[in-house]
Amino acid sequence: MIIIMGGKASMKEIKAVQSKLVQEGFTVHISKGVTRTIIGVIGDRTRAFTLSIDVMPGVEKVIPILNPFKLASREFKQDSTLIEIGDQVIGGKDVHLIAGPCAVESRTQLLECAFAVKEAGATFLRGGAFKPRTSPYSFQGLAEVGLEYMAEAKEKTGLLIVTEVMDPRLVPLVARYADILQLGARNMQNFPLLREAAKAGKPILLKRGSGATIEEWLMAAEYVMLEGNHQVILCERGIRTFEIQTRNTLDLNAVPVIKRLSHLPVMVDPSHGTGNWWLVSPMSRAAVAAGADGLLIEVHPSPGDALSDGQQSLKPENFQDLVREVSQVARAVGRVVNGARVGG
Amino acid sequence: MIIIMGGKASMKEIKAVQSKLVQEGFTVHISKGVTRTIIGVIGDRTRAFTLSIDVMPGVEKVIPILNPFKLASREFKQDSTLIEIGDQVIGGKDVHLIAGPCAVESRTQLLECAFAVKEAGATFLRGGAFKPRTSPYSFQGLAEVGLEYMAEAKEKTGLLIVTEVMDPRLVPLVARYADILQLGARNMQNFPLLREAAKAGKPILLKRGSGATIEEWLMAAEYVMLEGNHQVILCERGIRTFEIQTRNTLDLNAVPVIKRLSHLPVMVDPSHGTGNWWLVSPMSRAAVAAGADGLLIEVHPSPGDALSDGQQSLKPENFQDLVREVSQVARAVGRVVNGARVGG
Amino acid sequence: MIIIMGGKASMKEIKAVQSKLVQEGFTVHISKGVTRTIIGVIGDRTRAFTLSIDVMPGVEKVIPILNPFKLASREFKQDSTLIEIGDQVIGGKDVHLIAGPCAVESRTQLLECAFAVKEAGATFLRGGAFKPRTSPYSFQGLAEVGLEYMAEAKEKTGLLIVTEVMDPRLVPLVARYADILQLGARNMQNFPLLREAAKAGKPILLKRGSGATIEEWLMAAEYVMLEGNHQVILCERGIRTFEIQTRNTLDLNAVPVIKRLSHLPVMVDPSHGTGNWWLVSPMSRAAVAAGADGLLIEVHPSPGDALSDGQQSLKPENFQDLVREVSQVARAVGRVVNGARVGG
Amino acid sequence: MIIIMGGKASMKEIKAVQSKLVQEGFTVHISKGVTRTIIGVIGDRTRAFTLSIDVMPGVEKVIPILNPFKLASREFKQDSTLIEIGDQVIGGKDVHLIAGPCAVESRTQLLECAFAVKEAGATFLRGGAFKPRTSPYSFQGLAEVGLEYMAEAKEKTGLLIVTEVMDPRLVPLVARYADILQLGARNMQNFPLLREAAKAGKPILLKRGSGATIEEWLMAAEYVMLEGNHQVILCERGIRTFEIQTRNTLDLNAVPVIKRLSHLPVMVDPSHGTGNWWLVSPMSRAAVAAGADGLLIEVHPSPGDALSDGQQSLKPENFQDLVREVSQVARAVGRVVNGARVGG
Repeated sequence: MIIIMGGKASMKEIKAVQSKLVQEGFTVHISKGVTRTIIGVIGDRTRAFTLSIDVMPGVEKVIPILNPFKLASREFKQDSTLIEIGDQVIGGKDVHLIAGPCAVESRTQLLECAFAVKEAGATFLRGGAFKPRTSPYSFQGLAEVGLEYMAEAKEKTGLLIVTEVMDPRLVPLVARYADILQLGARNMQNFPLLREAAKAGKPILLKRGSGATIEEWLMAAEYVMLEGNHQVILCERGIRTFEIQTRNTLDLNAVPVIKRLSHLPVMVDPSHGTGNWWLVSPMSRAAVAAGADGLLIEVHPSPGDALSDGQQSLKPENFQDLVREVSQVARAVGRVVNGARVGG
Repeated sequence: MIIIMGGKASMKEIKAVQSKLVQEGFTVHISKGVTRTIIGVIGDRTRAFTLSIDVMPGVEKVIPILNPFKLASREFKQDSTLIEIGDQVIGGKDVHLIAGPCAVESRTQLLECAFAVKEAGATFLRGGAFKPRTSPYSFQGLAEVGLEYMAEAKEKTGLLIVTEVMDPRLVPLVARYADILQLGARNMQNFPLLREAAKAGKPILLKRGSGATIEEWLMAAEYVMLEGNHQVILCERGIRTFEIQTRNTLDLNAVPVIKRLSHLPVMVDPSHGTGNWWLVSPMSRAAVAAGADGLLIEVHPSPGDALSDGQQSLKPENFQDLVREVSQVARAVGRVVNGARVGG
Repeated sequence: MIIIMGGKASMKEIKAVQSKLVQEGFTVHISKGVTRTIIGVIGDRTRAFTLSIDVMPGVEKVIPILNPFKLASREFKQDSTLIEIGDQVIGGKDVHLIAGPCAVESRTQLLECAFAVKEAGATFLRGGAFKPRTSPYSFQGLAEVGLEYMAEAKEKTGLLIVTEVMDPRLVPLVARYADILQLGARNMQNFPLLREAAKAGKPILLKRGSGATIEEWLMAAEYVMLEGNHQVILCERGIRTFEIQTRNTLDLNAVPVIKRLSHLPVMVDPSHGTGNWWLVSPMSRAAVAAGADGLLIEVHPSPGDALSDGQQSLKPENFQDLVREVSQVARAVGRVVNGARVGG
Repeated sequence: MIIIMGGKASMKEIKAVQSKLVQEGFTVHISKGVTRTIIGVIGDRTRAFTLSIDVMPGVEKVIPILNPFKLASREFKQDSTLIEIGDQVIGGKDVHLIAGPCAVESRTQLLECAFAVKEAGATFLRGGAFKPRTSPYSFQGLAEVGLEYMAEAKEKTGLLIVTEVMDPRLVPLVARYADILQLGARNMQNFPLLREAAKAGKPILLKRGSGATIEEWLMAAEYVMLEGNHQVILCERGIRTFEIQTRNTLDLNAVPVIKRLSHLPVMVDPSHGTGNWWLVSPMSRAAVAAGADGLLIEVHPSPGDALSDGQQSLKPENFQDLVREVSQVARAVGRVVNGARVGG
């Protein structure tokens, strides 16, 4: 932490800052410039947050030097984290395809979809039983019945299950069915939910909030990891900008940035990230080229009848094309689309 | 709802859209232009959300005509909503000052602060017992002990209590102490929490998410109102933009926009909205001039020792100045700062 | 400037940075922390920009301490700048109203408008003869004929003239007619234009780019001032955010921020800033309450016939109401709306 | 164009809108819904911009149906535009690499760089002789001397030249040296410059403004095309968002969106787009996977000595690696990196 004292800070004000820091156990270096005095502070970064140096008289600015996350940082753990689920490994050479409908709508819809994405090369089935919807008038999901259909689809196809939990009270229920617990973009800073989900012991797929910085996203991962659950998969799903041609601006820069700042695996959801089915394929190829460890793709047997997000869902045949294209890009960057027969 | 069929849509595709809509009970008008066919759709706006017309073959765009919120709209209810709490009325001629520390830190800090803001003209005491913090290493609040201090402060000063609830499991506890339940910006789309808080029967102060559009914010209010609780106070607290001189960009445009779209009262939090104590006073004056029904102001007896958000907290003496200045602006726009002796 | 060396920077890399700085005439302080070495650099801030320390091996981050603008900074010049034009003073106690049509459309339209805004209390007449338009199919302005109408309106009403120049080749022409040369938001970083306009010797009204930070805006002012023209008036006119209810997000926070960082006067344009005529009045009141030195208001005798921006123009009678309301707010904050008879 | 009349619009107001449109030569369809009347308007889209229907009494909203650009739209011209320069073709199967220093600093620097990028596979040399810089204290370019060095580098390496023009007065000079005239992000809406550059008859590389929507960008292309110059290459270079880990948010979604909306070629500049040299390679791969027709890459023989943007420049050896990686991705999506020997 570096403290910049204002141009008119008095000797007394500088001393006061120094004393407070020393008293709290920090080591302090003072350098005087022509117009400013700079105070360098050495000590535990996580505790520096609890001080309010920035409002002490004479202080102009406080600049953190280290990133505020620790367990999630690559500095703390240099090797990339590998997450094993069943016989799948996330974060290694494989690029995973997590595919399925936005919402579980019926047994038939889900099973049809599950067989189709399995056939095309997916390793995980996604599907929402509890749906966070902007409008209270929109379809809210089938709840536990939806989870049961997911379980049946898993049994029949061997696909592992990714599904969202929105309510801390429902974590135990959802965790009974899910292989990966998804925490949605709107809940990225729902701290009671982060903690409760972490305790379930299942890997967490943590979506980036559409208004969240990468640093805040990693701080949310830090909440999960502080509960002792280090199996966190980050998922970029678009940020909100002024651009209106796309529902969100899928921020692929986040992929290499995360890889540099953190050891955690990172996936991309181009379906929510763009909001248009015709953008899903090119942005999937781009995500893999940028280094993503997996893709979340919405697939629906009949997008025109979908109860949610139909406009961003692929038909099974388009998903097959996507897998083929993505597999080629994956090979070009030294990766493998796991499960995809076309990779052969 | 208006549907625009693409330039190459076939007769068959146009018929298919028409059939689906008619089947669902909507009335349909078709007009053919030179390059496009336009389909006007008449019927229940809330149900139109459950269709996925936009992914039917040949459809180029679907444009909603009515706002997606209903109970919260001024079209639905023309008179401004007045919310009575104790002997205070929110949404009428009075401009309310809700003041206090960001977090309840100790009995002494809270009581000292409560007396000071009461003296200066506040009608409500704010203070967090449960604190949502970006970093898990930051101070998380005193929990129930904090609520007890709030209760004592209320008893001693007569101030009404505004405090945040973050967890649906804690709604009953917090509602026992709060006169207004605050739902924070990070939880604006925490739907299980919105529903649970609504059921407690207390007025809800609903902060705008820093990445939320005004429409989404009103949809969140709609969630609360659909549970039968129509006592919703909206609170603008800054949105996230590219500007970095301020922690957020306090969006005062939201005040007159809300007044036009909705009948609900709207307040402004310039402390979180700007993140700098020296911006709080000018932006408070501006908020009232723009038509705000109240202000949330962070006040701390000693900002330099605050455990959270010290840099945006006012000292009691600065808060007094603010009340005097804001009272004058309020008078200039035909309003009254309630409780402020300086208003005399 | 502070340089943070990465956790693995070698002694040799640290020495290399030190040598380069010393060689360039800077003074250097080195402090070693547990995981990082910090190098404090003292010297001319404007020259530090020409170094590329941040790409030297081992360097993690370079943090500037001083603001990059100098002539525009309040640190450089503590007293607020007053700009005298005719018998008007901008930047003092008066709040100025600069009103008129978006575009000069005809002699009649302009004269009618000029008399109306003069009558209501404006001191300056605005009107575009050269119009920057997003679409090449939109009305592009009357060019020199428009300037002649402005001159006639000035002669007849005594109003001073504010008009935009978009092309460095036309600066001499426009400067013959204008009392204040306006540089539009799209040209905030049109550096050849900034320089050419500066040389004309007339005061410059410099609008903020809709995607520009406050720091960049002040750097644009610095370009003008470096040419020897210190008569710069800044004008906030809305920034681009994700919010779509308003054409732009009028950023009133910029007003007190500019007042703190700079000695230059700052005005607000709520017409372009919001894009809706019904938002102009509340946001004008708010702008003055926040400390603005003036307002740019679009007024059109018949907005429904306007060739540009009709939806954000006020009718003369609405402008009269605005002046009355704004005058009251001005008084409440110790200012005076110059020229307004209602100021009584 | 569709006009939505407000819930309380009178018969007389609806008639007035109808009359105005009919008078202007538009055909009108009226449909009455339960709460709204909808008026469909058929006629020339480019002229509809000059009406101000939205401010007529009773009008709630005006919704355009067609895109406002015409010459640039794929609807107008279905086949992708191919631009031939020397023996190179842009917009076809080849992916072009336009590489070189941000600014031309010296003859040696430029020649060294030119040979290196040619060797690695570039087909065009980029380099700024006139530099738009946020700070007036930063290096502003070598002006005509820089252009002469570019000409020499062209002669010696056979690379074609891409260089920026910032001032309409300098278009003839710069056009004598450039094979492609670059219009920078800050000048995307500098309309006099767009027109003057268009007239020079050279292909235009039009960078997206960092605060510009895709629609505005295409409207800027329309300005160039309306002057009769249809050789426009669009270049995405990052938009401004709230994220601060990257200098800009490189918006790769723009690539497939442009491909759908327009027939013009589109390139990507990951150097400016991200601002960090270590992001250039992954984002280049991603850009090509998303469908980009070329890349602009900053290469500097010694980034640590660069007079501008050193932190985002690659060393020649890193550029070689980039070309190899990008070539593999290009092959995976059925494209070829032109000139790259590694493509073999």
